[in-house]
Amino acid sequence: VLARTTGHSYNNGQSNGNYRAPLIQIDHFGFLEDGTFKQRYLVNNEHWDQKGGPILFYTGNEGDITWFCNNTGFMWDVAEDLGAMLVFAEHRYYGESLPFGQDSYSDTKHLNYLTSEQALADFSVLIRELKRKVLGAQESPVIAIGGSYGGMLSAWLRMKYPNVVVGALAASAPIWQFPDMVPCGDFYKIVTQDFARSGLNCDSNIRRSWKAIDNITATDDGLQWLSGEFSLCSPLKKTDLDDFKAWLQETWVNLAMVDYPYEANFLQPLPRWPIQVVCKHLNFDPSSVSDYQLLGGISEAARVYYNYTGNCPCLNTSSTATGNLGFIGWYYQACTEMVMPLCTDGVQDMFEPQDWNFQAFSDECNSLFGVRPRADWAATVYGGLDIASHSNIIFSNGGLDPWSSGGVTRNISDSVVAIVIPDGAHHLDLRYNNEYDPHTVLSARIQEVEYFKLWITQARKLQIPG
Amino acid sequence: VLARTTGHSYNNGQSNGNYRAPLIQIDHFGFLEDGTFKQRYLVNNEHWDQKGGPILFYTGNEGDITWFCNNTGFMWDVAEDLGAMLVFAEHRYYGESLPFGQDSYSDTKHLNYLTSEQALADFSVLIRELKRKVLGAQESPVIAIGGSYGGMLSAWLRMKYPNVVVGALAASAPIWQFPDMVPCGDFYKIVTQDFARSGLNCDSNIRRSWKAIDNITATDDGLQWLSGEFSLCSPLKKTDLDDFKAWLQETWVNLAMVDYPYEANFLQPLPRWPIQVVCKHLNFDPSSVSDYQLLGGISEAARVYYNYTGNCPCLNTSSTATGNLGFIGWYYQACTEMVMPLCTDGVQDMFEPQDWNFQAFSDECNSLFGVRPRADWAATVYGGLDIASHSNIIFSNGGLDPWSSGGVTRNISDSVVAIVIPDGAHHLDLRYNNEYDPHTVLSARIQEVEYFKLWITQARKLQIPG
Repeated sequence: VLARTTGHSYNNGQSNGNYRAPLIQIDHFGFLEDGTFKQRYLVNNEHWDQKGGPILFYTGNEGDITWFCNNTGFMWDVAEDLGAMLVFAEHRYYGESLPFGQDSYSDTKHLNYLTSEQALADFSVLIRELKRKVLGAQESPVIAIGGSYGGMLSAWLRMKYPNVVVGALAASAPIWQFPDMVPCGDFYKIVTQDFARSGLNCDSNIRRSWKAIDNITATDDGLQWLSGEFSLCSPLKKTDLDDFKAWLQETWVNLAMVDYPYEANFLQPLPRWPIQVVCKHLNFDPSSVSDYQLLGGISEAARVYYNYTGNCPCLNTSSTATGNLGFIGWYYQACTEMVMPLCTDGVQDMFEPQDWNFQAFSDECNSLFGVRPRADWAATVYGGLDIASHSNIIFSNGGLDPWSSGGVTRNISDSVVAIVIPDGAHHLDLRYNNEYDPHTVLSARIQEVEYFKLWITQARKLQIPG
Repeated sequence: VLARTTGHSYNNGQSNGNYRAPLIQIDHFGFLEDGTFKQRYLVNNEHWDQKGGPILFYTGNEGDITWFCNNTGFMWDVAEDLGAMLVFAEHRYYGESLPFGQDSYSDTKHLNYLTSEQALADFSVLIRELKRKVLGAQESPVIAIGGSYGGMLSAWLRMKYPNVVVGALAASAPIWQFPDMVPCGDFYKIVTQDFARSGLNCDSNIRRSWKAIDNITATDDGLQWLSGEFSLCSPLKKTDLDDFKAWLQETWVNLAMVDYPYEANFLQPLPRWPIQVVCKHLNFDPSSVSDYQLLGGISEAARVYYNYTGNCPCLNTSSTATGNLGFIGWYYQACTEMVMPLCTDGVQDMFEPQDWNFQAFSDECNSLFGVRPRADWAATVYGGLDIASHSNIIFSNGGLDPWSSGGVTRNISDSVVAIVIPDGAHHLDLRYNNEYDPHTVLSARIQEVEYFKLWITQARKLQIPG
């Protein structure tokens, strides 16, 4: 039993006597590399109906699976009603599921098996193995559940391996955030809207802040002042300015992702409706304040995100979120398959204008990892906009979530459906029920469970005899 | 324009100005190997309606694409009615589509990208590229067509890339000939039935022949006699006996595959209903003939297959069929993913009893190629028996074809359907119309075209705007 923070417990699939981790092929798609690795997965069968009760299978994303496990309360909340076993499977190359141990990230050669296709194959092999080995699970319908990249994996698992999962809940899964599918500017427009609706002048003041930073940091004194005002752990140098702005921009993005209606600790510990709290520091009339006053407000706002606990002695611009996420791994994935164009224009959004520049991105990937992204591959392998022939997939999206820009927010067919949660941020529906939940997320969760029950019933009818 | 034997002409996609071959990634599923190769494909647009007329796309199998092109008359026969462009795409590692040129087969490392998943990705990339580049093809619905392994690829292409093809005709595609899906003995039972129904005592005499070979080859004189009787190019040695029997067994199997109702030249030039001709040499009462007489009949029978033209000075036991097939490549594929258990018992079939021995097979693969087959992978990646959630796939099977043992011969749903052609051998429906065609194959072809038209209509309705 691992450390737990949720009041629930789970077994580590690898160490528990009942569920030994299968050896998973490092390369499912080639036979030269015949090595195997141990994939970590967590299991809870407290409420499982051992006579074929369903399995809710979390398709792990780019981070430590225990963290996702503890941030996916929805599965724990619905387990009893469904008589479901819960399985949380870790994505290869993250957490403890390292194909080559400590060497996994050592070079391009070792990173070569970090792809979504390999991860989907891992999940499929693991599910088939569990169904074979766990007494009572042979006929258990399996439902894939995931959020964000994990939600993309859930949808894709159902698309590519419908023999393995009977349906999928893809929460806040931007499966269309790929080249030529959606406008690259929508993402930051949504971030901006979140700030605009959370306080008077909030977005305008952030929009003005970039120029104010330029103005003030034109002198060494200004640089020093800004470093002090933000309590930065390392004082800013002239050459750090782009990084500093990128760090601030990412801060606003992250706030938009986790603008939850209650105190929570996902990317950072935060108050309820954190953007409203941020915006209290940015509500002055833009024309009536100096650059110093404006950036003073920005620094207070940033502190809401980085120091809500009051325990943070200084702000560190080299990171914006929890260490549970695997940033290098995700960067590699973005540099290969997960090419997601984003852009800003400074008019419809509150950021400095920046085009999407594939060539520059490709060159950066090449210098970092020795690989070049393939812009068109995701559309080829995962269907692009043309997903109507699939079935049993729920795409849920929060109206506050910037990633809804690349999400499926309209019904595609009777069984590929969209649920929109207007007051929801990033996969709010996957979190525990909370007294402050808006009714839209409660009704989303009810609908999701209804679909699960429908799929389970369908699966039992379709069961292949023998 | 390449050499043609059919009266039709096609362009080589690589050399024709209108359709340049796209550079295809050698490895679609990893980014370390970033090389590309040229895939050969053949195009005919004589009857194509350039305003979005459909594309019939032949998913090439384990051999030279020109040979498949010339043996898939069905596509040529229906092109005008459908206003269809015809495309025949060569499978990587066969014909001229060699990822590493002459080195492609040099070692395990170079063979590593010879998999069905890579081939499906090749086809998808090629189709998307054609639709982008060929004027008028942007909205063209694409239908995958293939026979045998190529038919499996057609079905799998629709299953895995329904965004790329609107439907698939999988002719004589044994997608269930994998471990634990169908009984391993069914294949040879069907071979035996073909001989049993084609002449009195035919199967019984073949069943007796194995022991007769043992008896006669117990002496050097017998060995010499047998070599002479069969006009073998190289006289038999004691150590060749297993190979000799395997060669004979494969001869009967091949005859079962190509037991067509008219003169044809697929694996070999043959008379109409070749098994009936073979069986004329094997119709004696088994109890009334000596081993010498029996084997004399067998040698006459084998000559029907190997020397129908009368031009063959001696029989060569090292090959049983056309050089257009890539045997080494297919052996490698069987040694990796395409694990298809076959077995005999000598009772329900006319062969010497032989169990399916996975371990022995795996060891042989390891010594030949340095790889080991993964028995369970095909079931995981391609759905096994559980294919009901897919759509728009026709599985056609001939009742005479031994590969129908692993085929889908019952309707799975309204849109995953089976067509059985009782008098058909291996993908007879894909061949040109012929005056000797049984009515069952004519009606199969009519049904197939009706499904094509339905899919094309559906696709036009579903077209995503913009």
